[in-house]
Amino acid sequence: MKTKMQFKRDLKEKNELVNIAIDRFLPRKDEYPKQIHKAMRHTVFAGGKRLRPYLTVTLYNLFSDDNSSIIEVAAAIEMLHTYTLIHDDLPEIDNDDMRRGKPTCHVVYGSDLALLAGDALLVNAFEMLSMINIDDRIKLNLIREMAVECGDKGLIAGQMADILNEGKEGSPEMLDFIHLNKTVKLFRLCSRMACYTARVREEDFERLDEYSYRFGMAFQIMDDILDVEGEAKSLGKTIGKDAESNKMTYPAVYGMEKSKSVANRLIEEANEIISHYEDKAHFLKMLNDYVITREI
Amino acid sequence: MKTKMQFKRDLKEKNELVNIAIDRFLPRKDEYPKQIHKAMRHTVFAGGKRLRPYLTVTLYNLFSDDNSSIIEVAAAIEMLHTYTLIHDDLPEIDNDDMRRGKPTCHVVYGSDLALLAGDALLVNAFEMLSMINIDDRIKLNLIREMAVECGDKGLIAGQMADILNEGKEGSPEMLDFIHLNKTVKLFRLCSRMACYTARVREEDFERLDEYSYRFGMAFQIMDDILDVEGEAKSLGKTIGKDAESNKMTYPAVYGMEKSKSVANRLIEEANEIISHYEDKAHFLKMLNDYVITREI
Repeated sequence: MKTKMQFKRDLKEKNELVNIAIDRFLPRKDEYPKQIHKAMRHTVFAGGKRLRPYLTVTLYNLFSDDNSSIIEVAAAIEMLHTYTLIHDDLPEIDNDDMRRGKPTCHVVYGSDLALLAGDALLVNAFEMLSMINIDDRIKLNLIREMAVECGDKGLIAGQMADILNEGKEGSPEMLDFIHLNKTVKLFRLCSRMACYTARVREEDFERLDEYSYRFGMAFQIMDDILDVEGEAKSLGKTIGKDAESNKMTYPAVYGMEKSKSVANRLIEEANEIISHYEDKAHFLKMLNDYVITREI
Repeated sequence: MKTKMQFKRDLKEKNELVNIAIDRFLPRKDEYPKQIHKAMRHTVFAGGKRLRPYLTVTLYNLFSDDNSSIIEVAAAIEMLHTYTLIHDDLPEIDNDDMRRGKPTCHVVYGSDLALLAGDALLVNAFEMLSMINIDDRIKLNLIREMAVECGDKGLIAGQMADILNEGKEGSPEMLDFIHLNKTVKLFRLCSRMACYTARVREEDFERLDEYSYRFGMAFQIMDDILDVEGEAKSLGKTIGKDAESNKMTYPAVYGMEKSKSVANRLIEEANEIISHYEDKAHFLKMLNDYVITREI
């Protein structure tokens, strides 16, 4: 059994390693044209929770303790995630002013630079994967997997559907489509990249697909709930924004009580699936609990 | 010796193959969410000159006639190029209404969809490369090369410098930085991808680097010249736009006469370099001539 303090230390240590990997990979702030590098670093290092890279490394640790390659895989995922945040926050999409407790990239650097900073982070994510010191075949699997999950059949389809359905009456099917594509697929990408890197057997691959689906969906439902319940200060981003822009959310479609019970059920199932790995899954179970108990 | 008609037929045939490869790779227009797929196809199939894919395939043909892989490489380059066009045309960057003789992507589909369509084409370019039926090591070289040339140390650096220097008095050094990064590196990418795919020797690699540098720079200088001299109708995009937005251009820094003579000299040098391949270089020489004689 692990203590909460051990979990927090693990989270901090892994995220520190991921931050170092990103910092080493991105161009210095003072390289010309420095504005783009500043803009890229602004959102990457604005202090996110780093859930995705932590999940990636911790799932990988079910199978191996040699973190040399997986930290860079996790860093690529975080750069990819940050690109989606920067572009989503732009005035033409969600027009959000606050992110990770700081003014968004376009508020500080202008929409033109924010657009390019997002593009650059996306490209950097692919570049980083192409340079990891790992078997060529695995590297190609990682690259293809990332492209598929974040492309127009994945994250971008979710973002599109989100935009197209603003102000429309929510259907459970459409809500699932949006959450699956916009959020869950990125968490599933974490688990798939961990599985490829650890060269797991097919049955582990499928088990962790099932796990990350539940983890990601519970995370998004809680995000919807917190958007209604949270306070701007603690969540570090604009709150009540979903309702204001008529986004399709779990509470809007199912009501608050049902949303909470679905999130809880998903996390129970996630805990059950991950129990297969016994003692090795302690940190993951604590991460699961964090997802439904977090206030930010 | 090849006739002009043979050159035109070769151009048409290769571009047809590239179009088919892109068409097969992109999701159908009627796949959900269809708006994003329509927006992606709008600019890809708006009828560009397809210079970059043609250059890629034709350089490759210096070494091999088996076009099975190179067509897909060229298709990935064209998708990458189209992503840059869509994002550059957005209101926050160049705010261009016309491209390839048609209304730009954001004019037809809105800025939100155009932003996502650009993102999706960039991701698709990487996905396509990851799936080409070619040696793993070569595939990884292609992917890394594309990421480096189109990232914040390549195309995006050029785009940034272009934005930062609008309205400033042009220096030859800054102009070179912008043209090299924003335009030439994409042409150099064509030659490098052709070289990797054809598994050429180091000396050919370097020779074609020198060639594509001159080809790309001449192309951009002519583009600057045509922006001053051309007519909106024939060029198919907004004309006089550079001067209007105080872009740094060759005619603005060096004057029209000097610009034309530099472009001519570069193409002479390009012809000389490519002469190394004797008869096999006929179409490339005709392409070189096209760059400095084109009116659109």
